[in-house]
Amino acid sequence: MSEILICEVGPRDGLQNAKHRMPTAAKKRWIDALAAAGLREIEVGSFVPPRLIPAMADTAEIVAHARTLPGVKVVALAPNLKGFERAVAAGAHKITFPVSASRLHSEANVHMTPEQMLAEVRQCAALRGAGGPEIEGAVSTAFGCTLQGEVPEDEVVRLAAALARCCDAVALADTVGYANPAQVKRLFRRVRGEIGDKLEGAHFHNTRGLGLANALAAWEEGVRAFDASMGGLGGCPFAPGASGNVITEDLVYMFEAMGVRTGIDLEKLFAARAVLVEGLPEEPVYGHAALAGLPKGFRAAA
Amino acid sequence: MSEILICEVGPRDGLQNAKHRMPTAAKKRWIDALAAAGLREIEVGSFVPPRLIPAMADTAEIVAHARTLPGVKVVALAPNLKGFERAVAAGAHKITFPVSASRLHSEANVHMTPEQMLAEVRQCAALRGAGGPEIEGAVSTAFGCTLQGEVPEDEVVRLAAALARCCDAVALADTVGYANPAQVKRLFRRVRGEIGDKLEGAHFHNTRGLGLANALAAWEEGVRAFDASMGGLGGCPFAPGASGNVITEDLVYMFEAMGVRTGIDLEKLFAARAVLVEGLPEEPVYGHAALAGLPKGFRAAA
Repeated sequence: MSEILICEVGPRDGLQNAKHRMPTAAKKRWIDALAAAGLREIEVGSFVPPRLIPAMADTAEIVAHARTLPGVKVVALAPNLKGFERAVAAGAHKITFPVSASRLHSEANVHMTPEQMLAEVRQCAALRGAGGPEIEGAVSTAFGCTLQGEVPEDEVVRLAAALARCCDAVALADTVGYANPAQVKRLFRRVRGEIGDKLEGAHFHNTRGLGLANALAAWEEGVRAFDASMGGLGGCPFAPGASGNVITEDLVYMFEAMGVRTGIDLEKLFAARAVLVEGLPEEPVYGHAALAGLPKGFRAAA
Repeated sequence: MSEILICEVGPRDGLQNAKHRMPTAAKKRWIDALAAAGLREIEVGSFVPPRLIPAMADTAEIVAHARTLPGVKVVALAPNLKGFERAVAAGAHKITFPVSASRLHSEANVHMTPEQMLAEVRQCAALRGAGGPEIEGAVSTAFGCTLQGEVPEDEVVRLAAALARCCDAVALADTVGYANPAQVKRLFRRVRGEIGDKLEGAHFHNTRGLGLANALAAWEEGVRAFDASMGGLGGCPFAPGASGNVITEDLVYMFEAMGVRTGIDLEKLFAARAVLVEGLPEEPVYGHAALAGLPKGFRAAA
């Protein structure tokens, strides 16, 4: 209970929304630095059509590179069957599907209704042979949507339950930064009541500054796996108003300060941030802990 | 239990540390706008020697102005007996004393040891006649100190207990942004165990990004009064590395989204932020909620 897993999603969620393009070699150096800091799960890219998100065109090469890093679970996003096939061919260890609880966002993001997307995930799961990759279903816009506004919790629970039947793990994602801590506790509790330990990950954005507070609330509710993005990069290109993910450096700092082990070395993490900045020098990066530095006499979780 | 008090400390904690000076007339306009947004408690300045903090030289005039605002409790900081006498003469409704749990910070901040400062607070409390102002003792650097490093929790508890015997209320302040949510819960619980409901306020800084998470943790531990600073201004001029307070706009947004009433109107609060920026145009302001705006279909706490 005093240990969590942080999945770095910057190379996917961060770079897909960056104004500038990080060269492939720089991506590899950044991912190496993340692995060296102790990140054991990294979402390295997405298998979307390159004409839609050119920054993700090199994802197969990035997956191949990341697979050479010992102890790192290589995650890729797939928006449909074709993306799934490419992710499998590239050798991703885990493939995550965004299944939006908002119909408007689902159509904007994957050009399918939630129901059609669910059928797509089922088909992919059925195609997966023995020894195939892990499959995660992420309920997107689970806490609200900039297009639709409120998202009914019943719909989130229904989708999570459907995903639990065909996926290895289910995550709840606050794609546009609408979540608040009370809602986080309520919804994670409800979904856990339906699908138990199949509910794994929490994916928060910091759009209204509540990223860490929401992560804390989820942790108190038993969540032990968190997505985060270095430098607070991130945002969905097809969700208006979406901005950066919860910031990896601050999230790791918060949990380590609380005595919750992340397996991540903060000094090495700050060094990886320098590698990110070097590879993407024009992009603004965020986060407080890296700038302020560690408190005098700070001790990481033992 | 679903209602909290937010005390805006920007005119004191924010402006004392700002690189630029806000003119007296602009301070009054800002405080008017804060009151119009529903802030019921505003720390408007401090009675420190003007040669040390010139930005606070007009505090008596600001107190007199703020007293004309109906329903607003006017708070001022006093670092010693002389400041207390000036605050009483100016008509402050509540006077707060910083009593640092770190000896090094106490000496840098008020030129007294914690013990000497405690004696000073006792003397002020004894001098206060019937109908005098409320007196609050704030344990500064309660969660750590940039000069001393770790601050023993026993020392915080001891000071809080001593302050509870001579003050109307006691607050715990994370002067330099070292606190984490686990520590916040532990320390507030311990101090409440000693002094009960005399423990009122929580004062957090956002130096390492944990301001809202710490506020959430304190709220879960029963705290119902929070200091915050508009735009995240703030920092102690005599504590190296101290930076901005927890951001009023984001704090109000978080609690209102959770269904916890603050009595503050978010749109009017964002309008007050514009008044702040107008009065201090060169100073950077922070905060996510004001920039992102409220979620589509957002409902404040009922």
